Amino acid sequence: MDKVAVIHGPNLNFLGIREPEVYGHTTLEQLNNLIAWEAQQLRMDVIYFQSNHEGVLIDFIQQCHANKVEGIIINPGALTHYSYALRDALTCFVVVEVHLSNIYKREPFRHTSVIAPVCLGQICGFGVQGYLLALTALHNHKAAKT
Amino acid sequence: MDKVAVIHGPNLNFLGIREPEVYGHTTLEQLNNLIAWEAQQLRMDVIYFQSNHEGVLIDFIQQCHANKVEGIIINPGALTHYSYALRDALTCFVVVEVHLSNIYKREPFRHTSVIAPVCLGQICGFGVQGYLLALTALHNHKAAKT
Amino acid sequence: MDKVAVIHGPNLNFLGIREPEVYGHTTLEQLNNLIAWEAQQLRMDVIYFQSNHEGVLIDFIQQCHANKVEGIIINPGALTHYSYALRDALTCFVVVEVHLSNIYKREPFRHTSVIAPVCLGQICGFGVQGYLLALTALHNHKAAKT
Amino acid sequence: MDKVAVIHGPNLNFLGIREPEVYGHTTLEQLNNLIAWEAQQLRMDVIYFQSNHEGVLIDFIQQCHANKVEGIIINPGALTHYSYALRDALTCFVVVEVHLSNIYKREPFRHTSVIAPVCLGQICGFGVQGYLLALTALHNHKAAKT
Amino acid sequence: MDKVAVIHGPNLNFLGIREPEVYGHTTLEQLNNLIAWEAQQLRMDVIYFQSNHEGVLIDFIQQCHANKVEGIIINPGALTHYSYALRDALTCFVVVEVHLSNIYKREPFRHTSVIAPVCLGQICGFGVQGYLLALTALHNHKAAKT
Amino acid sequence: MDKVAVIHGPNLNFLGIREPEVYGHTTLEQLNNLIAWEAQQLRMDVIYFQSNHEGVLIDFIQQCHANKVEGIIINPGALTHYSYALRDALTCFVVVEVHLSNIYKREPFRHTSVIAPVCLGQICGFGVQGYLLALTALHNHKAAKT
Amino acid sequence: MDKVAVIHGPNLNFLGIREPEVYGHTTLEQLNNLIAWEAQQLRMDVIYFQSNHEGVLIDFIQQCHANKVEGIIINPGALTHYSYALRDALTCFVVVEVHLSNIYKREPFRHTSVIAPVCLGQICGFGVQGYLLALTALHNHKAAKT
Amino acid sequence: MDKVAVIHGPNLNFLGIREPEVYGHTTLEQLNNLIAWEAQQLRMDVIYFQSNHEGVLIDFIQQCHANKVEGIIINPGALTHYSYALRDALTCFVVVEVHLSNIYKREPFRHTSVIAPVCLGQICGFGVQGYLLALTALHNHKAAKT
Amino acid sequence: MDKVAVIHGPNLNFLGIREPEVYGHTTLEQLNNLIAWEAQQLRMDVIYFQSNHEGVLIDFIQQCHANKVEGIIINPGALTHYSYALRDALTCFVVVEVHLSNIYKREPFRHTSVIAPVCLGQICGFGVQGYLLALTALHNHKAAKT
Amino acid sequence: MDKVAVIHGPNLNFLGIREPEVYGHTTLEQLNNLIAWEAQQLRMDVIYFQSNHEGVLIDFIQQCHANKVEGIIINPGALTHYSYALRDALTCFVVVEVHLSNIYKREPFRHTSVIAPVCLGQICGFGVQGYLLALTALHNHKAAKT
Amino acid sequence: MDKVAVIHGPNLNFLGIREPEVYGHTTLEQLNNLIAWEAQQLRMDVIYFQSNHEGVLIDFIQQCHANKVEGIIINPGALTHYSYALRDALTCFVVVEVHLSNIYKREPFRHTSVIAPVCLGQICGFGVQGYLLALTALHNHKAAKT
Amino acid sequence: MDKVAVIHGPNLNFLGIREPEVYGHTTLEQLNNLIAWEAQQLRMDVIYFQSNHEGVLIDFIQQCHANKVEGIIINPGALTHYSYALRDALTCFVVVEVHLSNIYKREPFRHTSVIAPVCLGQICGFGVQGYLLALTALHNHKAAKT
Repeated sequence: MDKVAVIHGPNLNFLGIREPEVYGHTTLEQLNNLIAWEAQQLRMDVIYFQSNHEGVLIDFIQQCHANKVEGIIINPGALTHYSYALRDALTCFVVVEVHLSNIYKREPFRHTSVIAPVCLGQICGFGVQGYLLALTALHNHKAAKT
Repeated sequence: MDKVAVIHGPNLNFLGIREPEVYGHTTLEQLNNLIAWEAQQLRMDVIYFQSNHEGVLIDFIQQCHANKVEGIIINPGALTHYSYALRDALTCFVVVEVHLSNIYKREPFRHTSVIAPVCLGQICGFGVQGYLLALTALHNHKAAKT
Repeated sequence: MDKVAVIHGPNLNFLGIREPEVYGHTTLEQLNNLIAWEAQQLRMDVIYFQSNHEGVLIDFIQQCHANKVEGIIINPGALTHYSYALRDALTCFVVVEVHLSNIYKREPFRHTSVIAPVCLGQICGFGVQGYLLALTALHNHKAAKT
Repeated sequence: MDKVAVIHGPNLNFLGIREPEVYGHTTLEQLNNLIAWEAQQLRMDVIYFQSNHEGVLIDFIQQCHANKVEGIIINPGALTHYSYALRDALTCFVVVEVHLSNIYKREPFRHTSVIAPVCLGQICGFGVQGYLLALTALHNHKAAKT
Repeated sequence: MDKVAVIHGPNLNFLGIREPEVYGHTTLEQLNNLIAWEAQQLRMDVIYFQSNHEGVLIDFIQQCHANKVEGIIINPGALTHYSYALRDALTCFVVVEVHLSNIYKREPFRHTSVIAPVCLGQICGFGVQGYLLALTALHNHKAAKT
Repeated sequence: MDKVAVIHGPNLNFLGIREPEVYGHTTLEQLNNLIAWEAQQLRMDVIYFQSNHEGVLIDFIQQCHANKVEGIIINPGALTHYSYALRDALTCFVVVEVHLSNIYKREPFRHTSVIAPVCLGQICGFGVQGYLLALTALHNHKAAKT
Repeated sequence: MDKVAVIHGPNLNFLGIREPEVYGHTTLEQLNNLIAWEAQQLRMDVIYFQSNHEGVLIDFIQQCHANKVEGIIINPGALTHYSYALRDALTCFVVVEVHLSNIYKREPFRHTSVIAPVCLGQICGFGVQGYLLALTALHNHKAAKT
Repeated sequence: MDKVAVIHGPNLNFLGIREPEVYGHTTLEQLNNLIAWEAQQLRMDVIYFQSNHEGVLIDFIQQCHANKVEGIIINPGALTHYSYALRDALTCFVVVEVHLSNIYKREPFRHTSVIAPVCLGQICGFGVQGYLLALTALHNHKAAKT
Repeated sequence: MDKVAVIHGPNLNFLGIREPEVYGHTTLEQLNNLIAWEAQQLRMDVIYFQSNHEGVLIDFIQQCHANKVEGIIINPGALTHYSYALRDALTCFVVVEVHLSNIYKREPFRHTSVIAPVCLGQICGFGVQGYLLALTALHNHKAAKT
Repeated sequence: MDKVAVIHGPNLNFLGIREPEVYGHTTLEQLNNLIAWEAQQLRMDVIYFQSNHEGVLIDFIQQCHANKVEGIIINPGALTHYSYALRDALTCFVVVEVHLSNIYKREPFRHTSVIAPVCLGQICGFGVQGYLLALTALHNHKAAKT
Repeated sequence: MDKVAVIHGPNLNFLGIREPEVYGHTTLEQLNNLIAWEAQQLRMDVIYFQSNHEGVLIDFIQQCHANKVEGIIINPGALTHYSYALRDALTCFVVVEVHLSNIYKREPFRHTSVIAPVCLGQICGFGVQGYLLALTALHNHKAAKT
Repeated sequence: MDKVAVIHGPNLNFLGIREPEVYGHTTLEQLNNLIAWEAQQLRMDVIYFQSNHEGVLIDFIQQCHANKVEGIIINPGALTHYSYALRDALTCFVVVEVHLSNIYKREPFRHTSVIAPVCLGQICGFGVQGYLLALTALHNHKAAKT
């Protein structure tokens, strides 16, 4: 699992700006820097991507296939709850789904993820730290296999 | 509420062309002109936008934040019924949801709006006039607050 | 649409008294005065009615038929959610359903209107202003037809 | 079953006026006359009542108890679908539920009767004739018992 | 409506034998005789049929078409609740659905009829008398049309 | 909680007459006398009201507001299960909902109360005694607060 | 319980041929022979029947009534899940429902039996042995009663 | 796929007669002739069958097994929506389900097929042409395999 | 139907690459070539389009309107199950919905198409052949009309 | 009803400690003392029990049977909502179900009690006072019977 | 299948005492003796266990694993309907689920078993005899395998 | 978060024994050792507990309160899906819910956790590694707060 893509879905570019009482004050750039630092510790090669467009996210995921990305960490934002197209795109990767907030404490529509059934696992509720845990999870998953 | 964005979702660029027996004969351009005339009366500054792309609509809404837009009038078209991503983007604005037709008279899937719970209010069934009512509503909402 | 009836359902006579944090501080009398002033501008003839009784509301609506009332603005209060009898009474009028609060932000039982499918349109979330918008809507609807 | 009450629920006083394409052109007075003529043939004693008020209907049904009415023919109008209070009032009579239209051909909410489970039987779809069939049914039910 | 078919569905040949506390003690032969006597009064031409087989019932209904039968009185027995094939066969006739018992007082599965939406009307709860009422209903329906 | 209203909904004036095997043999007058005696012990000021009309019940509840009634004991009868209008009227009082029978042992529609969520508490299954328990509950609730 | 009918529903004549990985390799003839041998041990008189036709099965069950059959062992095949007509036919017998496979491990539609509520009991999951257990059950049920 | 059976379910013998605005004017005989002509082009051996009886259809399908039929084209008519017995009979064939009308545009009960999950594929909405497409599909499916 | 657009939704550009055990080994280019060859036989003018973006698909469909495209063959991929916006865009064309796999054999969310109700018909389960059948269907539909 | 058991379910030993804003500040020991004082007034013999274990609660209830306990006051805590085993154990006693809080104001899962259908009655929302009301209810229930 | 555990769930120690009209008069000790006698005939080694505690039942099942028990006969009592923990414990055994009563004739919550999907089969409705049938079933299942 | 309890629910003592293809081959002892090693790195004080008994788990959690445990890592096993009692016990701690397998890929009943809404977050799908991630999450959560 040397090459990993960290993908942020719709509205995550407003991290730190929109509803900080729910999502925290860290900005997306700061979050990516935190991940980069952690990746360096784990000697993992990480690329970053954000889009508000379901289609652009799918395009990027397909390029990951060409680019030999093995693992994906994704916070699909609200697409989590209805984007079966995103789900279909993810089926050929080892995927970890991350949510900043505990989605099981929020509105009922947020309790269901159409993405989770094609993932290795799901981590939610730990804020930005969730991404670092996901990175570790992918790192160790690779190690466990080799 | 001096600065307002009027946002038209998927297929509304075909207003006056697609299913006129449901949506009427006014074109999108004519509709925008009607709104512009009304806005002038109310001394409001209005910008207009249409897209068939959920992601492009979210991008635009995020720019509204940068551009100090305070109020949004949106007809999300069919995205009304499933775009939780659009909903998440709208949470930091005063929003009025408008529908040309009375959605409660139509197919069952059109009876539910995932957008409405983050709006100030909803207006439906009055054709193009609904937008003018929405503009007045935003105008007076601002007045009531100041 | 020269002759219009404004009908207030159960508990709306307690407007300004009961739960002002939800429904605002304007009393029913003040609301009717506001509507009267607007009606004068629009040269419309408006009559007012309030009752806590479903049956009395239906009786009044039937009298509207005899009195050549063409348009009805109604806030059916909690009857919105279950009074099919009220719905049946309204079918021979041009009706605008108004709610002071945004019913889609409140308890789930308030999200469904059994009245809406027999109305021209629905306006909710704008407080007392919603009635004025409804009056304008009826006024213009008449104009559009003639 | 010598004494029978024929009870008409909300909006049935507008029979012949409201939606004649659904309910026919016979007025309530004409309907009652038709029933009276049939009752005379069957030597039955019939009283008539109509109200748009659930409570007034219940009051009347309770008076039927005092007046030794044995059988009730009721078209509860839209109350059919939600008035559990009306249902409770009817439990001590032999009741026939009548509907002018075939309620199983119409909107889904009309398919369910909360009244039917406390009735002897239900007749629907035969227009005003349904009342005459109901009268015959009560007449013969009495005969069968004695 | 001179020519009418009276059709009895599955298990109705056991009328008077099976569960008499629910269905009464009259046998099918007695019931048909009762109907025949009534038909004679109304100068109607009636044919009778019973089968436990959905397919045989459909075959018979199709022959009714060839035989210029105009009206059908049918008690579909338990097929009422699931035989969409029977429903499809009945669409070109004037049909009255009859049930001996009040199906709305019994097990939940008996509350729904897939046949009712293609019928003129439904009569239930009056025992064998229901068939005679149905015959009258068809007779008068014809008279009303001519 | 010195001033309390005891409110009886539809059909409770037939207490002791209708279905005594369910509701017991005590009449409404006897019940009110029992409550009055208990109230005297507790030095509480109680007023009594019964109506079969949802609207009349709401009118009375609104008068309670004017009359400085603090607590309400209500058995809404069958309105329990659908009268959101009654619920809305009760929101400014301390309310105890009482049922004579254990509603959770009866037909499914009786298991749900739309009134309960706006009450202090609910007591059911103890026959007329339930009202006396409710009176004690209100008495002590007042005591606990002062 | 001296006389027992063993009834096999649709597609059970293909036992041993169709989907043997689900239903096993024993043929229907072999199964009936196994039952016959067991019946001889228990001194029971057994008759056998198979049909793919719901109606033919009902005809046969009605003949069982004439033939003084007391107990029925039935595997209704797929009719288990929807044939209310079969259910109605079985109500005057002591019935044991048998399934070769454990229906609760298979597709959701197979989890519900409309036949079970009118049976003495149900046995499933034991392959052809289930029929022998059913025979024993009926034998002992008779013994317990006499 | 040299040997194919074309099976028509209940009421399809009334093709061209019953509801031609839904099912078209071609009769069943004409349809079979059209299929025969197409089969000749594709050098396929086709047999035809129609029945209104679920059981007779299952009997015929079982005979297909004996007669080395490989592929089945079936329009199960209304049995589509509930005949699990038919479904069970079809499991050992390559089956194409055909519907004349677009079942997804019609009543809700027609949207679900209990047959489709055991088929190769489904074709609906193209009238009689659908059968010819199905024949081609089976022809090419065989070719693709050999 | 001389001019036809073949539209491929999200992830179909990965045909032959993603999950070949479900979707087969033919690539999108090969599929388009197969269609082109068939179109030549039928003398039809076909244009091809693929996008992972709901909005881009809608834009293209709107251009089809300008370009006098009459018929559309669309495999909406996972958008089939939730894109009401795509559905709205398709309403002014003759549309055939195609799926490579039999969606009724797969996960429950794939059993429902929000697109099907606005289509002429649906073809699923025949792999790439389904597109050729769809082309024939459109060709003959045109012929049948002229 | 001389001998009564007061049974406290899971987590009620943390009364006064856990979530006092919901359950109040009285501890379990204090509560039992309050009940004991009330029992003395009513000359009732009360035993107390608390356990976090469903099985231990059932064991204790079975011992109550041996110990001639006649009445049970139980607050089953969260077991209220799923413990059918507890329900089965309670069927041979006169049971009053008590809840400290008004369960109908809280999370949806708390609105349903699987215990209530086997109880005499239910009291909820009155805090610790509810137990005293329950004791009175049992006392008077006994008196009413003797 | 030489070694078998017979496990009785909550309240089964009250067999013969609690609700004998449902569960019969045989006590648990008598039942175990009956099973022991049958086991002797079949030369099977049986151990017996009863507990009202879900956890104790799971502990015992885990010990069965250590003790080389191969088959389990279990009547999980009310745990049948919700104990997924019991279900998980049973997955490594050949299990027969037994119920004394026909659970499909009783309250709706008793119709669903969360245990059945991990069992070999289920037997219900035959009273204590069901255990003997289950023993035979396990005996023959072992024989069939060896 | 210096003191943490790691709690294992029903059947987790069979880790490595039961269904290793789902849960892996690590035993519970090995798992606890892995956690202990990680805890040492993070200088956290961890205690371990396993029980198959809901009540024993609740007792232990209550003792954690006395023992000043701040954080809890819990894999509630199958209790995840129904133990509201466990949920109530956990409300005064910072809790991380862990599952070895991705519960969203398994049977539908495993998709819902009644525990998750009272947790800080949830981690599932990473096998034994999930516990180490949870420990890190609690460690950093404490750090973030101080």
